[in-house]
Amino acid sequence: MPRSRRDALAALGLELPPVAAPVAAYVPARRIGTQIWTSGQLPTVAGELVAVGKVGVEVSLEEAVAAARVAALNAVAAAASVAGGLDRIQRISRVVVYVASAPDFFAQATVANGASELLHQVFGEDGIHVRSALGAAALPLNSPVEVELVVDA
Amino acid sequence: MPRSRRDALAALGLELPPVAAPVAAYVPARRIGTQIWTSGQLPTVAGELVAVGKVGVEVSLEEAVAAARVAALNAVAAAASVAGGLDRIQRISRVVVYVASAPDFFAQATVANGASELLHQVFGEDGIHVRSALGAAALPLNSPVEVELVVDA
Amino acid sequence: MPRSRRDALAALGLELPPVAAPVAAYVPARRIGTQIWTSGQLPTVAGELVAVGKVGVEVSLEEAVAAARVAALNAVAAAASVAGGLDRIQRISRVVVYVASAPDFFAQATVANGASELLHQVFGEDGIHVRSALGAAALPLNSPVEVELVVDA
Repeated sequence: MPRSRRDALAALGLELPPVAAPVAAYVPARRIGTQIWTSGQLPTVAGELVAVGKVGVEVSLEEAVAAARVAALNAVAAAASVAGGLDRIQRISRVVVYVASAPDFFAQATVANGASELLHQVFGEDGIHVRSALGAAALPLNSPVEVELVVDA
Repeated sequence: MPRSRRDALAALGLELPPVAAPVAAYVPARRIGTQIWTSGQLPTVAGELVAVGKVGVEVSLEEAVAAARVAALNAVAAAASVAGGLDRIQRISRVVVYVASAPDFFAQATVANGASELLHQVFGEDGIHVRSALGAAALPLNSPVEVELVVDA
Repeated sequence: MPRSRRDALAALGLELPPVAAPVAAYVPARRIGTQIWTSGQLPTVAGELVAVGKVGVEVSLEEAVAAARVAALNAVAAAASVAGGLDRIQRISRVVVYVASAPDFFAQATVANGASELLHQVFGEDGIHVRSALGAAALPLNSPVEVELVVDA
């Protein structure tokens, strides 16, 4: 019997964070057809960004990878809140990782691996997804990364 | 009985703009599964951009919010043209707002609210969506914003 | 009887390239609902980028259009590998073209036409899609373009 996803999270020293309350006309996640889509999620813990600035300038590659992991965890929490729990997420379908980039920073894929690897650690084979990674000129609140998920649920 | 969406538009002093004719191999909107997706829409009125330039440089925050509203209205018109009318759109599912940003502009979420709030005003509860907002290095024709919708219809 | 898509490719002097092997937690394409989505695809031939740098700076408009065509072909190959062949792709639904852009480059739509026109040449009426084109601050490996597809299959 496979270990539950919550156990996988716990083994990583993580737990599902609370989901930010909906603000006005948009929500952290919602069902679209047979998927749940999340809004773009920032790397916040308890409402504070874990890093601020452009990757390759104020934020190191290592910090950006860690931030992508945090943003992905927030996105999983958002999806789980709509799915009715972490174990109701059948598969991770798609991941987009926006990386706030100076014009000469080209390791967006490495940053995105922070998100992809977390999803693989928690969901195993069901965490295998399609992915786009790109450099944004700037992101909301000067966040270094923003992560968006589509999951089957 | 709820007010119709066209009435809601009229109460805002707005009407559905004409949809640009398809150009070559792409179209303003099309059905994908149980949704209608739009192409990225620019803030044009009668074919002219309502603002030109980067937000926070040539375009003020207020002008950008207004432009996002115009682009969102164009996207609604594109979706409605495929759905068979505004009232055939069941829900707004997802909104992406690209904001042409100088590297030190971080209020993409505020700009995106111009789109989100219009959708909420016209569609009410059915206008509540997931959203990503990000800073583009530049947008087509030096547009300050580009808005893309997914709707249930 | 319509010419097959492989014939259409051959008439363009093209063939479907091999698809890169999956790396870790993400794959070149996968099925999501009734569609196949691809990961963001770079303009590589035999593993090498056909152009490197920002469009309008190191990469000319013509080179960028050609690169978008190459990236779109790679995306078609990725989708076909999941669909079970090129002729199992029913329609091209959606195209996103990310263009690595200097802040004063605004011809993202022209670059994106390189992708759109290839799809129209290969798929005919079934190649007509919705599209977003935007300027990225930078793309992975200093690629000038990245192309992502959603197809019905």
